[in-house]
Amino acid sequence: MAEYNPLPLTKLIEQFASLPGIGIKTAQRLAFYMLTLSKQQAEDFAAAVLEAHEKIKRCSVCQNFTDQPVCSICSADERDHSVICVVEGPKDVVAFERTREYKGTYHVLNGLISPMDGIGPDQLSIKELLARLGDGMVTEVIMATNPTVEGEATAMYLSKIIKPLGVKVTRLAYGIPVGGELEFADEVTLFKALENRNEI
Amino acid sequence: MAEYNPLPLTKLIEQFASLPGIGIKTAQRLAFYMLTLSKQQAEDFAAAVLEAHEKIKRCSVCQNFTDQPVCSICSADERDHSVICVVEGPKDVVAFERTREYKGTYHVLNGLISPMDGIGPDQLSIKELLARLGDGMVTEVIMATNPTVEGEATAMYLSKIIKPLGVKVTRLAYGIPVGGELEFADEVTLFKALENRNEI
Repeated sequence: MAEYNPLPLTKLIEQFASLPGIGIKTAQRLAFYMLTLSKQQAEDFAAAVLEAHEKIKRCSVCQNFTDQPVCSICSADERDHSVICVVEGPKDVVAFERTREYKGTYHVLNGLISPMDGIGPDQLSIKELLARLGDGMVTEVIMATNPTVEGEATAMYLSKIIKPLGVKVTRLAYGIPVGGELEFADEVTLFKALENRNEI
Repeated sequence: MAEYNPLPLTKLIEQFASLPGIGIKTAQRLAFYMLTLSKQQAEDFAAAVLEAHEKIKRCSVCQNFTDQPVCSICSADERDHSVICVVEGPKDVVAFERTREYKGTYHVLNGLISPMDGIGPDQLSIKELLARLGDGMVTEVIMATNPTVEGEATAMYLSKIIKPLGVKVTRLAYGIPVGGELEFADEVTLFKALENRNEI
């Protein structure tokens, strides 16, 4: 499709099409839209890309995105630094923060153990996680990886390393999603919900 | 969602979210992806935005996107300059070019007449279209606007202006889409397909 457009436009379409989840038709639509913007708007867009790429680094403690050496959560006195919630990526931190209920800290693994994709423990920020457990301040590590094969395997792997350090390791509860319909819950989820039923 | 991210990242998410059809979750995913790129890749992306915006103009003849004063179709000797296919936007030119069958030229209206959206004939490149019909070289104008209320209204409006100039005005055929299923065709489409049936 790009071949029918002038070169600078083709190049912009290809850039958009290289983004995850953006097909060639959407890329063309986005590129065409870009051309309808004012010069200032286009410059702002390009500047936002460069500025984010330049200023956003990894927090030296939890490995989440930050524009400071230590992120706002890790450096906050009012957070409970005795609890670490271990997640796959920065988007999971955003998801937990949206609940406005969790007051502990996070650790971003930057992936999950997945031998099929050639990702082993060494590719994840496990070394940095263990370094946080050395001083005895942390009493609980919550495994909040996705309930998938890779998420479970990573949680199991980490718990086997962390438990011997005398730190409590917990896992997110399985159950029926709030607002969901029982009819559409899969068998394993329903069994877990039944098994972990609570008295009301 | 953006509020839980550092400012330069929030700004990038907002830039992506301002694009048509990109919601806040997709915008966050794209922004996070941007941060995983190399410095060179991020710079290439930003440069593509700026370069396309700077170099891509409107063809002075057909009003399609081009990086030349006159686009490659309007300046091609092998195209049939006696036929003009009138379309709503540049994406429609790409769609027709993909058929590799149409050998005439185009005219990009840059919109459709839509009183509800405050778009009248003056906002479209109708003046430029009429200017192309002045020298008697053009013998046919094909109305290839979408088969929607606005597309039909625009085609009717233009045909009323162009016919008195002694130029043949045609409209794309209505019918069942190739590869579609009759069962899912709407009544009006099916009626048009029946009405315009061809001997085989």
